[in-house]
Amino acid sequence: MAGDNSEERQVRKIVVAVDEGEESNHALSWCLKNVAAAGDTVVLLYAQPPRVVYSAMDGTGYLFSSDIIATMEKYSKEVADAVIQKATRTCSGAQNVKLETKVEKGDPRDVICETVENLGADMLVLGSHGYGVIKRAFLGSVSNHCAQNVKCPVLIVKSPKPQH
Amino acid sequence: MAGDNSEERQVRKIVVAVDEGEESNHALSWCLKNVAAAGDTVVLLYAQPPRVVYSAMDGTGYLFSSDIIATMEKYSKEVADAVIQKATRTCSGAQNVKLETKVEKGDPRDVICETVENLGADMLVLGSHGYGVIKRAFLGSVSNHCAQNVKCPVLIVKSPKPQH
Repeated sequence: MAGDNSEERQVRKIVVAVDEGEESNHALSWCLKNVAAAGDTVVLLYAQPPRVVYSAMDGTGYLFSSDIIATMEKYSKEVADAVIQKATRTCSGAQNVKLETKVEKGDPRDVICETVENLGADMLVLGSHGYGVIKRAFLGSVSNHCAQNVKCPVLIVKSPKPQH
Repeated sequence: MAGDNSEERQVRKIVVAVDEGEESNHALSWCLKNVAAAGDTVVLLYAQPPRVVYSAMDGTGYLFSSDIIATMEKYSKEVADAVIQKATRTCSGAQNVKLETKVEKGDPRDVICETVENLGADMLVLGSHGYGVIKRAFLGSVSNHCAQNVKCPVLIVKSPKPQH
């Protein structure tokens, strides 16, 4: 196509932060449809929340038994697997894009910024909330933090308005 | 190209907020190279700061003369013209993109959010600082505000690291 900018495009590495929420899945879909082009690498990144200290105690101050902790760890791993699987399915139509997946433990804000930096990513894509309403109350807005701290361009995609 | 996502792409309206700084020009270039595709409309939007009340007085509390005010208004218009001209030149290589320009008076945060809404834009692109370090001190971060208040996806592009 004459004058098509895509001829000038270089292959890029796009990190998409995915989580349990529908919003990050929407962000991924939007990116695949509107930004990702043939040859690009899309890295699906899930930040697995670390087991924080107080999670080893229940409300009464007793330590959880090792059984409970093992169950919690198993649950955490299952969530990570489910998130990555769902995101991978979302990418199934984009056969021209190279797909990588990455699960890293830690505060999502740190995990995302560090991964983008380490990979030398060309772009970061994420939902505007990031990591759910409850976690956001503790962590502050993940997207705000990343937009301020990541050097590469950051695309923040919000959930579309509810249709009902 | 088999499996090229661009076949699924619809024509989009992309608003790019431009200002006096190099960063917004970089954001525009990055958008043209990495996001804008054939048939898209790119709207170059410049928010012209309004003449605020206290600007009609000098430091001693005397009203500026009408001459001074006329000079200030002329300067403000010249800045707007220069910004739009520079941005238009940046777009000169992207012949497949439809170009529109828009100058609106007001607080850039309001102008950008309202214009994006009124145009039903599919995407907003802007630099991370927006409107200069000094104005940012007064206005807060334009990009943060827009990322929180605009419904469509927002792409924040930072200046590349200084090369020297």
